[in-house]
Formats: sequence, structure tokens, C-alpha cells
Amino acid sequence: MAVSYYYMLQSVRLSPKTLFISRRDCSGYSHKRRNRHITFASTERSEKGFSVDTKVDTLLDSIKWDDKGLAVAIAQNIDTGAILMQGFANRKALATTLTSRKATFFSRSRSALWTKGETSNNFINVHDVFLDCDRDSIIYLGKPDGPTCHTGSETCYYTPVSDLLKQDKDEGNRLALTSLYALESTIAQRNAELASTENQKPSWTKRLLLDNNLLCSKIREEAGELCQTLENNEDKSQTASEMADVLYHAMVLLAVKDVKIEDVLQIIRQRFSQSGIEEKRSRSSNKSGKD
Amino acid sequence: MAVSYYYMLQSVRLSPKTLFISRRDCSGYSHKRRNRHITFASTERSEKGFSVDTKVDTLLDSIKWDDKGLAVAIAQNIDTGAILMQGFANRKALATTLTSRKATFFSRSRSALWTKGETSNNFINVHDVFLDCDRDSIIYLGKPDGPTCHTGSETCYYTPVSDLLKQDKDEGNRLALTSLYALESTIAQRNAELASTENQKPSWTKRLLLDNNLLCSKIREEAGELCQTLENNEDKSQTASEMADVLYHAMVLLAVKDVKIEDVLQIIRQRFSQSGIEEKRSRSSNKSGKD
Repeated sequence: MAVSYYYMLQSVRLSPKTLFISRRDCSGYSHKRRNRHITFASTERSEKGFSVDTKVDTLLDSIKWDDKGLAVAIAQNIDTGAILMQGFANRKALATTLTSRKATFFSRSRSALWTKGETSNNFINVHDVFLDCDRDSIIYLGKPDGPTCHTGSETCYYTPVSDLLKQDKDEGNRLALTSLYALESTIAQRNAELASTENQKPSWTKRLLLDNNLLCSKIREEAGELCQTLENNEDKSQTASEMADVLYHAMVLLAVKDVKIEDVLQIIRQRFSQSGIEEKRSRSSNKSGKD
Repeated sequence: MAVSYYYMLQSVRLSPKTLFISRRDCSGYSHKRRNRHITFASTERSEKGFSVDTKVDTLLDSIKWDDKGLAVAIAQNIDTGAILMQGFANRKALATTLTSRKATFFSRSRSALWTKGETSNNFINVHDVFLDCDRDSIIYLGKPDGPTCHTGSETCYYTPVSDLLKQDKDEGNRLALTSLYALESTIAQRNAELASTENQKPSWTKRLLLDNNLLCSKIREEAGELCQTLENNEDKSQTASEMADVLYHAMVLLAVKDVKIEDVLQIIRQRFSQSGIEEKRSRSSNKSGKD
């Protein structure tokens, strides 16, 4: 089960004083390992001799700030892809985000810098920052410590226009979920309904939730069918369909075990961002020596 | 293999003349079925007697447009969660998006309405629209017909600040990828490198890519280990870890078969948005009669 692979993407995190580099190009895949950031330089000068401050200034200069000195800043969950919130950044807010690695914005109403979480402690820990092609829009790609919205909601986007128009409601209560998380939400809903629908003929999802033998039998069967699409050289559309079956059934098992797919994706991210040093060590101590 | 489940989330799509309702509350899970939108009303009045136009006006009135009559509008891929682009919407842009179901913005530089794709044909087909808690930020959750960025990039966010600061580059060339897609990208990279690293000791990912028997054996093994965490009542952290193994190995198979995880998630979404009528029919014709 202990396996590893190398040459991952690499990312750099930078502060005026310290250059953090997370090496994904030598990452490993093994349980019980943790994501680490390696300090490559505790100096204001990088290995190429450029001042880190100068580089940050050059970067800040390259952004097309609007007539109020602002650019749109969108915070996105690095594991789920959920858009957590949107605010605005000015030079200082972006510079602070790069330094502190906590998503920081400029409040237009209060005319002040604010770091998400400074009151609630629900910080958004920024792993990387992306600019758009026009250099006037920013993504803070990060991991939230808790619910982002001041209402306690996971994200600020919980008001679907479709519900407002159909139900004539003033407020919505359904998060903007992409396909994988809509599936997870639906399975969770079926799970919550189990007690109240005891005498009704259960749906397939409910049958799986109630019968561990059936569920495990289906997961093994679907995994086998996914493999058969490769072994029997079946059409790629069949592979996609079988993978959907594997995902669905495996996610029912996650619901039974009360595991979030976000936690699974976090594990994947952490395995892929292991440092080269750890990876080398793990390989030298790997029994098979084949990884 | 043919299974079904009901009571999915529901969403409504609305135009001044036609109310489209996609019923997820009775959706089905079966191959060879397609996502359908049912026309519930071809009138300007909904079943509750409210004028659709009035409802849209009330909605538009509830949005906190800024001093220029604009709100931030973010287009997000409904399957992958990728932030495709960000623009601004005014009343007319949002109303047009609701009517046409094509992401439409207000261009500040040209002072004109524009629908993404009107020149390139790469429209963003909007499935639902979400508002944030402050009602001044909008998500267009939809499916793009092709690359969103005018540069031909899948999204406009391909410039990581970390790369700019580290490599002293003017432009980036790495998309803002969340964990699942970063994994997919890495596997694709290993796949592309296979030919050039023939004489090197291959990484685990490369070994899997080169050996179908090994890959299928691992997928079956990992699926079994995932099931065992349920069967043996193992800790939930072990379930998450085994699910990460299943996902990783299955995604290597997808790479071998040239299947994108986005296509798999689209299948899941389409299975979950089947109409109640179709679902009922499929159940009555289902051989097992158990779904």
C-alpha cells in the first residue's frame, strides 16, 4: 500500500523575510506523512539575487488596480473548489496576504484593511494566489479554518436565484455546490431521512446506506467493472460511466463512515506536497524499494 | 449496475416567457439517460399567480448594485468548480443571463453588455445563479462550451503569484487547480513524460501507467481495503486514507483511457438531474424492480 511518485507541481510561498517553498516535484505518496513547507531562505534576497521586497513591489505594480486602488479578490477552497467569499484587495491587502498567508481584504465600507478571521478565528489559510489574464482579478486559493460567512454558513453563496424566483422567498438556504458536493449533499440528505421513512420502500441510496454487505459488494463490483473497461479495451465513455458508479458507491460508504470527501481531497493534496527530503527518506526505508 | 435514487435537489431556470424546471427531487441513476429540463409553464404567470417579470424585478431590486450600478459576477464550472472568469453585471446583464442562460456581463471598458461566447462561441451555459450574503456578489454556476479565456486557456486564472515571485517571470502558465485537478494534472504530466524517461527508474505513477495488470490489481485491492474499513469498523481516518488510494489509482486508469474526471462528474450531475417522469418510467421497466 505504501507507494510514491515524484515530479509534482511546485509552489512557492513568499514573505518579505522568508521564502517558503513547498516542493511538489519530489513528492511522495504514503500514509502517515504530512504536508511540509521548507524554508529555503530566511533573507530578503532570493537565490537569484533579487530582493524579495522588490519582486513583490514589481508584482503589485503589475496589477491593474481600479480608480479606487482596488481589485476583486475571490477566496476559494483549495480542496473543494467552493467559492468561499469575494471581497476587494488593495496593494496593502495583497501584500499582507502574501506575507501572512491569511486572506486579507480592503473593506470599502470601513475603509480599512481586514483579515478574514481576525474576529471569528475562521481564517482562510492561503496556499497560492492567482491573477487573471487582465491582472485585475485575484484568487486566494486556500483552506478555511471554519465557516467563512459571518452567518455561520460554510460560504457566503447560499442564496440560489432559482429558489428565490420559484418559492418567492427572501432568502435562500442552499449552497452553490458543484457536482461532487451536490452528490455528497444528496447522500447526506438520504442518510438523514432514514429514520423518518422506515415504512416506505427505500431508494437505492437508502438501501446501500442500510446494508453494509450490499454496499461493499457493489463497491467491489463497480471497481471490477471499471478495470474491465481497460482490460477489455472498452470505449472511453464506458470508463467514465463506470468511474461515476465507483465514485457514487464509494461516497455512500463515506457517508456511512461520516467522512467528508473534502477530507479525502486534503489527504491527496498533502501526499502530493510532501518535501523531497521526506520523500527520499521514505524511499530509502521502503521495504519494496520499488517506489 | 442499473440503480436509481430519488429526492434530489431541485433547481429552477426562468425566462420571461418560459419557466424551466429541472426536477432533481425524483432523479434517477441509470446509464443511457440524459439531463432534461421540463417546461412547467409557458406563460408569464407562475403557478402561484406571481408575474415572472415582477419576480425578476423584485430580485434585481434586492441586489446591492454599486455606485456604477454593478455587482461582481464570477463564472464557475459546475462540474470542476474551476473559477472560469470574473466580470461585472448590471441589472440588464443579470436579467439577460436568467433569460438566455448564457453568462452575460457588462463591460466597463466598452460600456456595453456582452455575452461570453458571442464572438468565440465558447458560451458559459448557466445552470443556476447564486447571490452572496451581502447581495453584491453573484456566481454564475455553469458549463463552458470551450476555453473561457480569450487567450485559449481553460480559465483566465493561469498566473500564479508564487511562480512570478520565484522565477521572475512576467507571465504564468499554471492554472489555479484545486486538489482533484492538481492530481489529474500531475498524472497527465507523468503520462506525457513516459517516452522521454524510458531508461530511468519509473515512479510509482509511471509504473501504473505502463502496466495495466498492476494498475487493475491495485484498483481492486484498494477498493477492497476501503470496504474493509467499514466491515472491520476501522477508524474514519483510515476510510479517508483508503478512499484517497482508490481515487488516485482510479484516476491513473482514467489517464490511461484518456478520460477526464470532469466528464465523470458531468455524468453524475446528469444522472442526478433526471426528471421524475423519466425516473418513474425507468423504474417500471427495470428488471430487478428494486430501485
